[in-house]
Amino acid sequence: MREYSTLAAVDLGSNSFHLQVARVVDKQLYPLDSLKEMVRLAAGLTADKILDDASQMRALDCLRRFGERLRGFPTHAVRVVGTNSLRVAKNAAQFLRKAEAELGFPIEVIAGHEEARLIYLGVAHSLPASDNNRLIMDIGGGSTEFIIGSRLEPNKLESLYMGCVSHSLRYFPDGRITKGALKRAELAAQTEIQGISTEFSAAQWQEAYGSSGTARALGRILRLNNYIDSNQSEGITLDGLERFREYLLKAGDSKKLAIAGLHPERAPVIAGGFAIMFAAFKELGIERMLLTTGALRQGVLYDMLGRFHNEDMREISVQQFMQRYRIDPVQATRIESLCMQLGRQLLADYPDEEAVEDALRLLSWAARLHEVGISVAHSGYHKHSAYILGNADIPGFSKMEQMQLSQLVLAHQGSLSKVSEFLINPISLAQSLALRLATIFYRSRTNIKLPRIKIRGGKDAFELFISPAWLDDNPLTETLLRAEVEEWSALKINFHIQGYAQEKG
Amino acid sequence: MREYSTLAAVDLGSNSFHLQVARVVDKQLYPLDSLKEMVRLAAGLTADKILDDASQMRALDCLRRFGERLRGFPTHAVRVVGTNSLRVAKNAAQFLRKAEAELGFPIEVIAGHEEARLIYLGVAHSLPASDNNRLIMDIGGGSTEFIIGSRLEPNKLESLYMGCVSHSLRYFPDGRITKGALKRAELAAQTEIQGISTEFSAAQWQEAYGSSGTARALGRILRLNNYIDSNQSEGITLDGLERFREYLLKAGDSKKLAIAGLHPERAPVIAGGFAIMFAAFKELGIERMLLTTGALRQGVLYDMLGRFHNEDMREISVQQFMQRYRIDPVQATRIESLCMQLGRQLLADYPDEEAVEDALRLLSWAARLHEVGISVAHSGYHKHSAYILGNADIPGFSKMEQMQLSQLVLAHQGSLSKVSEFLINPISLAQSLALRLATIFYRSRTNIKLPRIKIRGGKDAFELFISPAWLDDNPLTETLLRAEVEEWSALKINFHIQGYAQEKG
Repeated sequence: MREYSTLAAVDLGSNSFHLQVARVVDKQLYPLDSLKEMVRLAAGLTADKILDDASQMRALDCLRRFGERLRGFPTHAVRVVGTNSLRVAKNAAQFLRKAEAELGFPIEVIAGHEEARLIYLGVAHSLPASDNNRLIMDIGGGSTEFIIGSRLEPNKLESLYMGCVSHSLRYFPDGRITKGALKRAELAAQTEIQGISTEFSAAQWQEAYGSSGTARALGRILRLNNYIDSNQSEGITLDGLERFREYLLKAGDSKKLAIAGLHPERAPVIAGGFAIMFAAFKELGIERMLLTTGALRQGVLYDMLGRFHNEDMREISVQQFMQRYRIDPVQATRIESLCMQLGRQLLADYPDEEAVEDALRLLSWAARLHEVGISVAHSGYHKHSAYILGNADIPGFSKMEQMQLSQLVLAHQGSLSKVSEFLINPISLAQSLALRLATIFYRSRTNIKLPRIKIRGGKDAFELFISPAWLDDNPLTETLLRAEVEEWSALKINFHIQGYAQEKG
Repeated sequence: MREYSTLAAVDLGSNSFHLQVARVVDKQLYPLDSLKEMVRLAAGLTADKILDDASQMRALDCLRRFGERLRGFPTHAVRVVGTNSLRVAKNAAQFLRKAEAELGFPIEVIAGHEEARLIYLGVAHSLPASDNNRLIMDIGGGSTEFIIGSRLEPNKLESLYMGCVSHSLRYFPDGRITKGALKRAELAAQTEIQGISTEFSAAQWQEAYGSSGTARALGRILRLNNYIDSNQSEGITLDGLERFREYLLKAGDSKKLAIAGLHPERAPVIAGGFAIMFAAFKELGIERMLLTTGALRQGVLYDMLGRFHNEDMREISVQQFMQRYRIDPVQATRIESLCMQLGRQLLADYPDEEAVEDALRLLSWAARLHEVGISVAHSGYHKHSAYILGNADIPGFSKMEQMQLSQLVLAHQGSLSKVSEFLINPISLAQSLALRLATIFYRSRTNIKLPRIKIRGGKDAFELFISPAWLDDNPLTETLLRAEVEEWSALKINFHIQGYAQEKG
């Protein structure tokens, strides 16, 4: 993968959108520029999980400005991630199409688990080296991530479906902060956290850090109002939170909050954010939390940097999955190597080189993971593989990448009609054909000597050139190839098998 | 589980229906009586996988006769299994309702993998003890099973989706046996078998056995027509198959077959069955296959016998799954024990004792397996658990039992609306409520001391009696219980939480 000297990450959070540009020097990142807008996307989610027009408008306006800053950046030098609001919005797909048009770059929605991994990556790079186990808590707009890790390794990752925007809207809908409402908000957060409390309790770590806006705002408030002991100059303490709690109840309304350290645009979502933080302190036994400027966007940048230096997390995950699901590595290698050979030929004339590179990488992953579902059951294993690849937490992958892996693996066996939508894309079509043919040729799972295979075509017609003598010697493979011709013709795609000699004639 | 002195197994095969009655003496089975009718269910499957009226009629007529023989048998002394045709027929559910009414006993459809396991169990009990690895091949009407095992342990199990009825219909639709048609039938079978040839080739076993009608008919034909060498008095050889192949081509039509050993009602499906057998000999390198009278129905009987003697295969599978998917055994035990306590109370007044026994057994399995899906991803794990339990090969379980496990596990978290159909059954409702409450009380995953919990009700109203003081001390649990009240009320089920003291008053 080509390396770039300037990278950019965009985080489409449920509360704020962030743009971070950084320079790469000696495999290190140096921040160059950043933009932030409090778009509050989560506030535009209706009860039936539709992003309303106003929030879409705010988001698109922001992305237009970000797009201007990113003009001229190469595609692979920019990564844009969307989090909880885009995970849950039912009209996310339509919105994303408009958003990508404004921004000029593809947007990847990432799962909560992956978000937690990237947050850790960003935070870990911002903290001094230490062998301590660290708890990182990141209260976002629509989800809250908990991570325990040591140095650059996250060991436990969790994402809970509550954030400062959603929690504020739910428990303080009109802004009023009553004793009862605050108690309900805290209890609700605590029951969520209870589900992970054994794994994340204070016994499991030595230091706690808070990242993102809510934690930093609380830290600022506690410090500027002397809510923390004079010998603790920074961070958040339970004691300090209790004092701020009294202030919140006394003010009684988000619209009346006026306290040093609280920016007016944070005020509408501080009560919900506070309730989550307070609940975490109580449920996990946190006594003191330090603050960090590390965040998701830095994690995204470091993850991109890894991809340039053969430390692509996706590659590591594929290898881990092969082991965890006991995939036969010899067969996986056979299939992968033939897939690459066929895929390269099929995509040889495709105009966009970077897209071909991405497509072959995905094909290689699919080739190695297509038998993951045998762990569930042999019969219909391709469906089980598709389920696992579509639903598992696979570190490094976006939801879209997982969906493509899942569809490709689903397409590699049985009828094509179930994936006809997926095959509309010429790249998906080429990938699917390559994987189907590779599994046909290596169906015997032995190191057979294959003849020279040439393949060409695209869209609605393909030709496979292969030695007729070899086919005569391998009637089982021929039978399967003939069935393949039928299968594609049902989709109105002409798949033609030619004797190799004829090609030259 | 109560033991019975007389057991019966019914096998609703795709070619024949079998009824086997046996007496139990000292944990051994002695055949008492058997019935067989060649119903040829698979021949009634239309192109779009609908069982036609004629085949349903044949089947129901047969089941009426079987039902007469089984009159007076206790429910748990009879097990009825359906195989491939009932696995694939889209109208199987409607047919099964009628079939159960005629027969008077519930019918369980089993997966191919489970069919293979039961065939092995039946065959292994019929063969002399030996430490050899044995290949068992069972060509049925709609599927063919391959098993390698030693003594009573099957080590590899496969079920291929082709049988003597379906293969005959597909390749010899008008009965004519031409050279080309026979070659195509053999090649098609061989490509199917190729997918498992590494695992089942001759290098993997020392003895091969054929069970079921096709193998036994071929053995009889080879013996009676001197198609096998004089020094081999029984069994099937490649040489012998080749001689019969010549006869088939010479006769040229299934309707003209007249050869010693071939019963007229076997004639229409012998060409397809032969092609599968011949392909297996070639692809797996079989030189000689012995014949056995052991079959699925005996396996079903031995499996029932195991259930009476604490060797329930389902119990063993649940334990294996807990290990394979690394389920936290301490939490599983907590949840199971509370589930049993609640389930017993909820079903105390249910009129059918055996049904309650079955329901509690299933609840215990679900309690121990409900976290199986965490292996895929933590978020939405109940959906992944439901997927795995619905789709995995779980030895000992019928498809219906797996479906119930899957639904129950799906019901234990999140909204109930997704399982409203499942909850119509009062037993499923009680099971779901017990599992939901157990996971609420043990959400902290610690050995908390629970108060006395009483629960009662049914159909559309439940009351939970619990100490109000304990609830006050455990506000998180109370919050979750209150949410539970909401959740059930959305289904118009009144779930009411009472202070314990009030119950006495």
